[in-house]
Amino acid sequence: LKIFSLSSNRPLAEKIAAEVGVELGDISSAQFSDGEIKINIEESIRGCHVYIIQSTSSPVNDHLMELLIMIDALKRASAKTINVVLPYYGYARQDRKAQSREPITAKLVANMITQAGADRLLTLDMHAPQIQGFFDIPVDHLLGAPLLASYFLDNEVLNHDVVVVSPDHGGVTRARKLAEFIKAPIAIIDKRRPKANVSEVMNIIGNVEGKNCILIDDMIDTAGTITLAAQALQDAGAKDVYACCTHAVLSGPAMDRLNNSVIKHVIVTDSIDIPEEKLSEKIIMVSVSQLIAEAI
Amino acid sequence: LKIFSLSSNRPLAEKIAAEVGVELGDISSAQFSDGEIKINIEESIRGCHVYIIQSTSSPVNDHLMELLIMIDALKRASAKTINVVLPYYGYARQDRKAQSREPITAKLVANMITQAGADRLLTLDMHAPQIQGFFDIPVDHLLGAPLLASYFLDNEVLNHDVVVVSPDHGGVTRARKLAEFIKAPIAIIDKRRPKANVSEVMNIIGNVEGKNCILIDDMIDTAGTITLAAQALQDAGAKDVYACCTHAVLSGPAMDRLNNSVIKHVIVTDSIDIPEEKLSEKIIMVSVSQLIAEAI
Ligand SMILES: Nc1ncnc2c1ncn2[C@@H]1O[C@H](COP(=O)(O)O)[C@@H](O)[C@H]1O
Ligand SMILES: Nc1ncnc2c1ncn2[C@@H]1O[C@H](COP(=O)(O)O)[C@@H](O)[C@H]1O
Repeated sequence: LKIFSLSSNRPLAEKIAAEVGVELGDISSAQFSDGEIKINIEESIRGCHVYIIQSTSSPVNDHLMELLIMIDALKRASAKTINVVLPYYGYARQDRKAQSREPITAKLVANMITQAGADRLLTLDMHAPQIQGFFDIPVDHLLGAPLLASYFLDNEVLNHDVVVVSPDHGGVTRARKLAEFIKAPIAIIDKRRPKANVSEVMNIIGNVEGKNCILIDDMIDTAGTITLAAQALQDAGAKDVYACCTHAVLSGPAMDRLNNSVIKHVIVTDSIDIPEEKLSEKIIMVSVSQLIAEAI
Repeated sequence: LKIFSLSSNRPLAEKIAAEVGVELGDISSAQFSDGEIKINIEESIRGCHVYIIQSTSSPVNDHLMELLIMIDALKRASAKTINVVLPYYGYARQDRKAQSREPITAKLVANMITQAGADRLLTLDMHAPQIQGFFDIPVDHLLGAPLLASYFLDNEVLNHDVVVVSPDHGGVTRARKLAEFIKAPIAIIDKRRPKANVSEVMNIIGNVEGKNCILIDDMIDTAGTITLAAQALQDAGAKDVYACCTHAVLSGPAMDRLNNSVIKHVIVTDSIDIPEEKLSEKIIMVSVSQLIAEAI
């Protein structure tokens, strides 16, 4: 068994390797002068069960190609099995044709990973669980909810008067799962646009007045949805508002929005590495390393 | 028949469409906030023969993914045939395992293009013609040499006392082809390292004294090889030194090296779009648009 880290999330890879009790394998990944990726695997892997840790977070195309080139190199070097650990699956939101002539990039990515030579995929909270079916190789789909739940359960202040809130009707199942773990009721924010060109109205279904609210989503990207939802909860008389998600994409205005929002803390996992300069006191990170190590 | 341009080389795509006598198809290609590519095809292509013009030049991974996502979208929108026009094939230099545990990324790319749904590939001077065999779909492999040759034939000053020079022993076949077109002899630069840790010696095989020399390569990337070769030719008493290539990759120190070199002019094609700020008087561009239009 050998574990290799590519360049998207080395801190997580190091934690996973430590949990498993091995050293990370020796590779170098660099770029030629023209930007093409150059990978050197510096130790023999013939006959080994190899695990590659890589999230296809931003820059998504570079991280994806790096992964595919690594799989190709391992296959040609006679690895026994190639196991791709993809804590964050990029392009997962393009998982269906919502309009004519749209691509289904999540399936394209699935085909690329399989065709390159992966034998098994280990991933975490894909945007839609249906993406498992895009693969013909075994997929282990881990769930972040128990991990996020433990954070709240360990946190005294949140042991009473809590309600788990889904920021939109699409996320109710996810909210229910977290609510079961922490034994809390749920509420749902149901956005409606009364007429065209009139701004959306946030209807809150469920009782949030005087309660500690925990908003949950699978990912926080530009943080528009979650910060608007938090404001609506506060306007409806909520006590403290927390947010949590598995994947901290945090692109564009995300950090400004979160820092200026009524959200007290945002609990995220380290499926995506957050660069130092983005971290703020609002963000609390829990690690998925043990969860992944157990699945390896 | 519809022709679409992706983002790597719109000037060339416009010329090709003009030669063919059609308007470029209507698409928009943009990025979501997190950098994922978003393609919208704005017109119906059901039942059409579609041509996509894209070079996988730098940023290579972005241009490659844009191409694959476009192929996926066209396939799902029931295009009759999907024809990929790839004037420059990125990753072509990773076409074999030169050392243990190297990937063969040129083959990985071939598989990705095929699997995404391409029916035919049209490309130009691939780094190795063997890459044609990486595909099971039809590949049209166009040659830039006749085009470069016409430039020299049209150019009075070069109609006598010319010798075509290969900058290394690997490029002799290419030099012979150009030499046949312009009816000139060839010479070869044979680099030898007399002992380890001693710098290379440039042996020139053939007669270059007092001659106009034309160096030819398939691509000029960092321009190290070609500028050293030009210096060696001048040191050996050559008259004027010209250089030509099909693919103007021009990464890193390339432009500085060319501008400071003894090379009088560098003749390149527009297989790769050269940004305004890189162009210098040394560079002369000939267009492959007619060549490609004829093959469409
Ligand atoms: N990277 C992305 N950033 C923002 N929106 C996206 C992205 N990828 C896909 N989408 C859009 O998000 C929608 C899917 O989100 P959802 O309805 O939550 O499954 C799709 O209709 C896409 O148009
Ligand atoms: N993008 C690149 N830039 C520079 N060198 C490369 C690149 N891709 C591959 N190579 C190297 O170039 C060699 C192939 O060049 P050649 O011997 O001319 O076919 C390979 O051994 C690679 O190590």
